[in-house]
Amino acid sequence: MTTRCIIQVINPNTSQAMTETIAAAARAVAAPGTEILAVCPQEGAPSIEGHFDEAIAAIGVLQQVKAGREAGVSGHVIACFGDPGLLAARELADKPVVGIAEAAMHMATLVATRFSIVTTLPRTLVIARHLLHQYGFERHCAALHAIDLPVLALEDGSGRAQQKVREQCIRAKQQDGSGAIVLGCGGMADLARELTLELGIPVIDGVSAAVKMIESLSALGLSTSKHGDLDFPRAKPLSGMFSHFNG
Amino acid sequence: MTTRCIIQVINPNTSQAMTETIAAAARAVAAPGTEILAVCPQEGAPSIEGHFDEAIAAIGVLQQVKAGREAGVSGHVIACFGDPGLLAARELADKPVVGIAEAAMHMATLVATRFSIVTTLPRTLVIARHLLHQYGFERHCAALHAIDLPVLALEDGSGRAQQKVREQCIRAKQQDGSGAIVLGCGGMADLARELTLELGIPVIDGVSAAVKMIESLSALGLSTSKHGDLDFPRAKPLSGMFSHFNG
Amino acid sequence: MTTRCIIQVINPNTSQAMTETIAAAARAVAAPGTEILAVCPQEGAPSIEGHFDEAIAAIGVLQQVKAGREAGVSGHVIACFGDPGLLAARELADKPVVGIAEAAMHMATLVATRFSIVTTLPRTLVIARHLLHQYGFERHCAALHAIDLPVLALEDGSGRAQQKVREQCIRAKQQDGSGAIVLGCGGMADLARELTLELGIPVIDGVSAAVKMIESLSALGLSTSKHGDLDFPRAKPLSGMFSHFNG
Amino acid sequence: MTTRCIIQVINPNTSQAMTETIAAAARAVAAPGTEILAVCPQEGAPSIEGHFDEAIAAIGVLQQVKAGREAGVSGHVIACFGDPGLLAARELADKPVVGIAEAAMHMATLVATRFSIVTTLPRTLVIARHLLHQYGFERHCAALHAIDLPVLALEDGSGRAQQKVREQCIRAKQQDGSGAIVLGCGGMADLARELTLELGIPVIDGVSAAVKMIESLSALGLSTSKHGDLDFPRAKPLSGMFSHFNG
Amino acid sequence: MTTRCIIQVINPNTSQAMTETIAAAARAVAAPGTEILAVCPQEGAPSIEGHFDEAIAAIGVLQQVKAGREAGVSGHVIACFGDPGLLAARELADKPVVGIAEAAMHMATLVATRFSIVTTLPRTLVIARHLLHQYGFERHCAALHAIDLPVLALEDGSGRAQQKVREQCIRAKQQDGSGAIVLGCGGMADLARELTLELGIPVIDGVSAAVKMIESLSALGLSTSKHGDLDFPRAKPLSGMFSHFNG
Amino acid sequence: MTTRCIIQVINPNTSQAMTETIAAAARAVAAPGTEILAVCPQEGAPSIEGHFDEAIAAIGVLQQVKAGREAGVSGHVIACFGDPGLLAARELADKPVVGIAEAAMHMATLVATRFSIVTTLPRTLVIARHLLHQYGFERHCAALHAIDLPVLALEDGSGRAQQKVREQCIRAKQQDGSGAIVLGCGGMADLARELTLELGIPVIDGVSAAVKMIESLSALGLSTSKHGDLDFPRAKPLSGMFSHFNG
Repeated sequence: MTTRCIIQVINPNTSQAMTETIAAAARAVAAPGTEILAVCPQEGAPSIEGHFDEAIAAIGVLQQVKAGREAGVSGHVIACFGDPGLLAARELADKPVVGIAEAAMHMATLVATRFSIVTTLPRTLVIARHLLHQYGFERHCAALHAIDLPVLALEDGSGRAQQKVREQCIRAKQQDGSGAIVLGCGGMADLARELTLELGIPVIDGVSAAVKMIESLSALGLSTSKHGDLDFPRAKPLSGMFSHFNG
Repeated sequence: MTTRCIIQVINPNTSQAMTETIAAAARAVAAPGTEILAVCPQEGAPSIEGHFDEAIAAIGVLQQVKAGREAGVSGHVIACFGDPGLLAARELADKPVVGIAEAAMHMATLVATRFSIVTTLPRTLVIARHLLHQYGFERHCAALHAIDLPVLALEDGSGRAQQKVREQCIRAKQQDGSGAIVLGCGGMADLARELTLELGIPVIDGVSAAVKMIESLSALGLSTSKHGDLDFPRAKPLSGMFSHFNG
Repeated sequence: MTTRCIIQVINPNTSQAMTETIAAAARAVAAPGTEILAVCPQEGAPSIEGHFDEAIAAIGVLQQVKAGREAGVSGHVIACFGDPGLLAARELADKPVVGIAEAAMHMATLVATRFSIVTTLPRTLVIARHLLHQYGFERHCAALHAIDLPVLALEDGSGRAQQKVREQCIRAKQQDGSGAIVLGCGGMADLARELTLELGIPVIDGVSAAVKMIESLSALGLSTSKHGDLDFPRAKPLSGMFSHFNG
Repeated sequence: MTTRCIIQVINPNTSQAMTETIAAAARAVAAPGTEILAVCPQEGAPSIEGHFDEAIAAIGVLQQVKAGREAGVSGHVIACFGDPGLLAARELADKPVVGIAEAAMHMATLVATRFSIVTTLPRTLVIARHLLHQYGFERHCAALHAIDLPVLALEDGSGRAQQKVREQCIRAKQQDGSGAIVLGCGGMADLARELTLELGIPVIDGVSAAVKMIESLSALGLSTSKHGDLDFPRAKPLSGMFSHFNG
Repeated sequence: MTTRCIIQVINPNTSQAMTETIAAAARAVAAPGTEILAVCPQEGAPSIEGHFDEAIAAIGVLQQVKAGREAGVSGHVIACFGDPGLLAARELADKPVVGIAEAAMHMATLVATRFSIVTTLPRTLVIARHLLHQYGFERHCAALHAIDLPVLALEDGSGRAQQKVREQCIRAKQQDGSGAIVLGCGGMADLARELTLELGIPVIDGVSAAVKMIESLSALGLSTSKHGDLDFPRAKPLSGMFSHFNG
Repeated sequence: MTTRCIIQVINPNTSQAMTETIAAAARAVAAPGTEILAVCPQEGAPSIEGHFDEAIAAIGVLQQVKAGREAGVSGHVIACFGDPGLLAARELADKPVVGIAEAAMHMATLVATRFSIVTTLPRTLVIARHLLHQYGFERHCAALHAIDLPVLALEDGSGRAQQKVREQCIRAKQQDGSGAIVLGCGGMADLARELTLELGIPVIDGVSAAVKMIESLSALGLSTSKHGDLDFPRAKPLSGMFSHFNG
């Protein structure tokens, strides 16, 4: 069975460079019949490193989901490790929506009994911890690590952040007793495949994982349930800067 | 010790009527030295009944928190039972921030071994369930009930929604084995005291509970921790409709 | 990117009819580049309805995994809802192994906040409950139901079991507040797509879900981690009826 | 609204010095309309450092609660970090009863995503761990620490215990990734405010927190629920040393 | 190996009739080398039906444990379903201490995947629920039931309470999907064996179960650990009615 | 009451030396009326160090349980720390079945608030972790340790493995804050009593613990529940190497 599939990959921050990193990672694994539509909000935050940034980013995500739905995409990926706006996006969409933290964590539990997470700033660890709990994977995560560099250091061209990610992954493999590592930032999407080869254990990027999840759901004929909790938002007139969501 | 205290009570929806209900409930319990500053966003959703509505509302909450902080308030209450934007608001604030779901649930565990929740639409139950889990109270909640009327039915003047709340509370007392009931909507704030008297068990409104929580934290000299997870958002240029958050 | 993929779908019981049902469900969703190799043990139990049956079935699963590995398959599906022998199979394999309970539950959490399970005999519910717990999804499952017919009733040609599954799914949708339903038996694999259409909510079959999971892992270059817990079994001489596992 | 309030603060041990420390901490935060009635049992243990000591202390607490109720107080604080006799006291009381461990932990979750506990002897950590679990805060506590000095070292006038508390708080801030610290002994009540200032994070004393909790419940018109689990003890003739509880 | 063993079975209430019921149940299962020393406090409550009663009972339990230790017994059973004073008793004892709720629950998990509890008054259910949680068995308990008669109804000679226990056990077997039933009161100790035969499933009495646990620990050379949490209470002068605990 | 009891102690691996170690440990604690029937499978794995080994071993365990049942034994012990085939064996048996991990963990919770586990290879830790979770004891276990030697090193006569167990137990006592230690391998059964004496804390062997559990259940008249989940396997023709299970 061929699956004809257009996947909207939404980078929730406004960084064009990161959108391209993410788009490349998505395209590298997309099936022949899949088209990747990589987008980012026109308004918002250049990087997402906390709850405030996530609240801002969620609006951009929702705008893109609305646009993607109108364009008839087959599914949506939220390509920031905090999965900002995930449940709200599922209400808005009639197709599947998958976050990259969610996708990476799910995949990790299929290839290892426990995994470690390597992310950017220590302050984002609390978000990862909450997601582990929400998704049910708190017992599958052996440890969380932060390289203590901001998200955009991954885009500064120096390779310093990438080197710190690599070193932290090696330490995590040696010390945590984990069988796999989850990369905790969309901006690390390009590192997974080579680190998997170098370290000899699965190092998992959520962007590519989420693309395969959407392709899978699409091929299975499964979409976000519109029965109950995730039904479309109740119709009501939004005002001001949100009025473009109306209609 | 007298505590001089200005509490910003933020109704996250744009309903003026509900803002007044909430303000009245807040003022009814405020200490002599406390001033209640009841506000609602100028832009947003007229009621909040799902994750999408919450994402929209979070922006309005954050705008108000920023304004409140600039006005030098002593603390902020988020007066919608989903506590939208709570952790983001804590990042933005240097004073305490308390959500009404959180406040009501905390209070309930102090007066009963288990409580029931009575809320509006069934689709909002998932939000309450997630909060119970996030706050650690899932084992303290015996049951969740929805009256199956939208939030704004509480403001239609007919009293029909109020009557359904009352009936559901009576049933919950009889059937759940709960010692207390938590009212699951800011628009029910005016019902708690009379239902407490009628039913003979604590029926708890989060708005008034949160006001006392802020007064308490303020008197104790405790503010949102700026060490680690809830530190101020990292400085970064927000663009477009979010640029007013800059500076 | 095209993924060239041979997926070994292992029916852990010895029923040829059920192996064909499963094979058909697998082929119906396989990507163009995917070949489905449907097998069942030559020795074992004709159906799996308890822990004893699962222990028997696990040996057959492991024999097939060994054979599949020698044949160079890209991944293995364990097509019985108890996922018998899953972690043992992961030790034996160098490619991914996915169970159908696992796959269906993961998929369900991506399209609904809570799901219901509909399975065959009441005595198998305890197995499903243990898996929910092991995988981390106990809070995502609203209810478990049994139609109270044995597994092979699904293969008796009368359609009676299928009718009971359908009725139970309808009741579950109405009563549990679940957004999706997971079918709890490999023998129900052919029912998912039409029930999804009829009920208007995702009704999920694990066989097809697991096939897409293996395709996804394969395309992502992710295999069972051989670091730590799931490393190949330590070399040791097995005796008697197990000696064919040696070498 | 002015709240006229008499709060009985019960030090469960018989140390007069500690009762005074506790009374001072209570008075320092009490609202203008609040009177603090600090008491301790006439019979019992001079300090509470284990389950046996707690069982002894519970009787003294209950005697005081009975006396306080007869005196018409507005609420009761149990001022020992193990909250000895808490649920029994709630049965006996018709007004609110709050323990200081409970109060401090609740407050901590309002100002930080995770907190650390600093207490006296290592053997009391198990009690704190059980309370975290009972109250639902096990996931909100990052670490527990003991200074390895007995409770009464806090009253020996040397300041050595206070210095060890301070050092441990500093280490906890640096190492645990916690945003707040909970002081794990009523005898540390006088340290919270200055440590909060020195460390720049909320350092929380349960005595003052509990006083504000009682004031809050009182202002909200909320008392211990007498419906179900916490109803008054069933009338029955207690004999011997317990006969003074009769009538 | 013959085990010479004196087991002190402590009925925490002052009912002589119940002490005899308990003693008989203990003797009925004691090994040939085991002597049963059945005692109850001279001062305390005639029945235990809530947290207040438990706090009172704990003192009597501790007095008996002290006496038993001085008499050189091999272990102590706390024969009330709330296991009052259990951890305090373990501190005081140098031999094993087992509660009957604990013993019955442990045994139940060895013979069934899930069990139901049948107890006396609804208000005691909260105590059972807390114990399930403390011992780790909350997932092994399918349901809790109360016959809504006080404890001493079991001793009124009418057999009415016994009949209600029997009926509730039959209902529990039919409705809960449990494989075993735990009797939730020391006063039901004489019912277990006949109900086991009548219902055809294990109906478990904690008194007899705890006797076998103590015999087992004794034969294994295992006593309450005096390293750390359960070490003897720190020496300190208890005053007043507790001074007999000194020395 | 004298209990006449034949306990089948099943070593799930084929090592005769280890079967003798286990038999000796069982006999050392057996009551006068108890006969120990120590057996091991004739076909299978010489040691069990992972999930694959466990799946193999489960078949041997089930064959022995069937033989034991036909021989009329009073109960069965599964003497490998992973408790392989436990629930399947309970289906097959009409008498009690107890695993040694289960027995040791239960006993540990009766004598200490938290325990540590010391086992052989690191890869077996995941199995112990899963059992802790299944049995409900994850919060009672402070730490798990591996001596990093294979199971059969315990039988090589050098004493090196025994020495490493001893050293690890000493470290665990000092560092984990645990009151007891559980030995994580049937081959360590002979070490418990002397380590208990040397370390001064309970060091628990599951083989002897399980023997006492079976004796206890037997004396209490409690057998594996045949109501529901653990009923005998449904009659069905097993084929090939499993056909000897028929009839």
